[in-house]
Amino acid sequence: MNSAPSPLLWVDLPTGPAVRLLDQTRLPGEEVTVTCHSVDVLVDAIRRLAVRGAPMLGIAGAYGVALAAARRDRGSEHVARAAGALATVRPTAVNLARAVRRTAAAYDEAGGGEPGAKAALDVAQAIEAEDAASCARIAEHGLPFVPEGARILTHCNTGQLVSGGEGTAYAIIAAAHRAGRLAKLWIGETRPLLQGARLTAYEAVRDGLPHAVLPDAAAGVLFARREVDLVAVGADRITADGSVANKVGTYSLAVLARHHGVPFVVAAPTSTIDLDIPNGAGVDVEQRASTEVTAFGGIPTAPAGSPAYNPAFDITPPDLVTAVVTERGVVRSVDEPGLRRVCRFMEPDV
Amino acid sequence: MNSAPSPLLWVDLPTGPAVRLLDQTRLPGEEVTVTCHSVDVLVDAIRRLAVRGAPMLGIAGAYGVALAAARRDRGSEHVARAAGALATVRPTAVNLARAVRRTAAAYDEAGGGEPGAKAALDVAQAIEAEDAASCARIAEHGLPFVPEGARILTHCNTGQLVSGGEGTAYAIIAAAHRAGRLAKLWIGETRPLLQGARLTAYEAVRDGLPHAVLPDAAAGVLFARREVDLVAVGADRITADGSVANKVGTYSLAVLARHHGVPFVVAAPTSTIDLDIPNGAGVDVEQRASTEVTAFGGIPTAPAGSPAYNPAFDITPPDLVTAVVTERGVVRSVDEPGLRRVCRFMEPDV
Repeated sequence: MNSAPSPLLWVDLPTGPAVRLLDQTRLPGEEVTVTCHSVDVLVDAIRRLAVRGAPMLGIAGAYGVALAAARRDRGSEHVARAAGALATVRPTAVNLARAVRRTAAAYDEAGGGEPGAKAALDVAQAIEAEDAASCARIAEHGLPFVPEGARILTHCNTGQLVSGGEGTAYAIIAAAHRAGRLAKLWIGETRPLLQGARLTAYEAVRDGLPHAVLPDAAAGVLFARREVDLVAVGADRITADGSVANKVGTYSLAVLARHHGVPFVVAAPTSTIDLDIPNGAGVDVEQRASTEVTAFGGIPTAPAGSPAYNPAFDITPPDLVTAVVTERGVVRSVDEPGLRRVCRFMEPDV
Repeated sequence: MNSAPSPLLWVDLPTGPAVRLLDQTRLPGEEVTVTCHSVDVLVDAIRRLAVRGAPMLGIAGAYGVALAAARRDRGSEHVARAAGALATVRPTAVNLARAVRRTAAAYDEAGGGEPGAKAALDVAQAIEAEDAASCARIAEHGLPFVPEGARILTHCNTGQLVSGGEGTAYAIIAAAHRAGRLAKLWIGETRPLLQGARLTAYEAVRDGLPHAVLPDAAAGVLFARREVDLVAVGADRITADGSVANKVGTYSLAVLARHHGVPFVVAAPTSTIDLDIPNGAGVDVEQRASTEVTAFGGIPTAPAGSPAYNPAFDITPPDLVTAVVTERGVVRSVDEPGLRRVCRFMEPDV
């Protein structure tokens, strides 16, 4: 069982409402929470990755709009400005902009003010609840991909820390563990920010999963030794053609999986699918600061004067993806018709 | 020009001879030298990677035997024990055991004592000089693989720090720079010990090469964007069938290079070729300590209780290798006949 602090909570304090976050930059060393009384603080927390992961960014963005709406002294212009700031702080995750738009629309439709604030909070809570339900369905749909005694390789962090529930790829892995099918979870450390080593391993320890952390570049050895039965990763955005934008390193694993005939499964809620972008070339991929690569914990890891190449994401083309597992079902033919089919019951702007 | 301290020097001090090493674990932050008055200190320096890289390990091992031989108060048993300790401290690099055997044999053939000590030092100096000449020839033979405006991706460290000269893959890259052909050197940081970020970038800054450091897992993005024209790496051991044991991560780059149709060149002196081992399955690959992965500079990067999978090397099969560039010529048909041809003038135990 899980006695770890909740990764995101809406709290009503004597000083007013706030969003309380588990600061993921401090894990696994410390479980520190950050209380965001203002949207500025929340935007900063998102920017510095205290809260991250596509579905969780949507939830955080929605609560951020609700937080702005709760400042009734400031009016609708404040809400619009907050929504603009929240929607654009991380460009790659489609869930963030989408959830922010949906919450801001609810505020506007309710006519702002107190009814708007209530509507915004209702929508934020609904987005969180929908995501929790979505995680459970993803786990159910993904479990058939896991054989008995599976050794699953994953990358970055896709668990409770990034969602309203048990996560995406991680939810499948946790379900496989409960079903007695997980022999080993291989966790790529995910340089430069080590979300695999810091966060997924934290969740694996919390949940008692058999696991080991590896340097990202050691994955090749596992494949060559036939010690990987399945690769399961999340997605930050899936374009209409089935291209998957996800944490840098995902693409290398997809190429290795193809070279070794190992299934490569992407788990993501349909809110991650962006049919408005035709293909991977249209995804705005963040280049992050050199210092994430050239220093660690204040210690230089490269000489002064060495620049770094530090893309946050990469794009895996659909021909390398065995299946996209969503809360509404599995897309095995990873292309536009396949993705449109799974999205067909989607509300216009969910 | 290069005002950096020499990576390895034989010094005659008032207290007796010693081997002085640039401690590579302290780079790029500090240029600290370690003076080894005894073989024990040198063995420890090799074990903790203060000195590393296949050709340099050979040179260090040879000087280590010379150091033991210089202790004439201790006799030939001391030399034999020292040679045994030196030859086995790092199992993967064939150069180390080979150079140690060659130097110890010279000591024995000279009948030990003062003539033995002189013979051992002569051989150690010869090994160093041969390696410097070998680096220059490797650069010459490798340069034709580098197109104009080349963007070369490398891994780990293969330069002056690992050799008696300019290195192996790095010697080709430095020659390409002098020939005006190098547009960019992409340096994989090489987790867990960051030899790329720490050491190759140090050499690139020293030599004024246009370069950038990247997380190993970001190499896929460079390939996908067609920003790599050549992969050039070194080798710790090449088996009779042409399998290449090299720093973990090399194999992933080879698979990516193949997937994108980019040439993958291995640069190594013929002393790295081990015809006694039929294929990659026969290479003893070190598993190193978990803590190299789960902590950095004393800061935990994974939760307590998370084990790590940390192979030091991986094996790239010959079908992924475009060519092996040696000091004696280029092997384009990477197989046993090809390797035997390039080795044919080799002394039985060089």
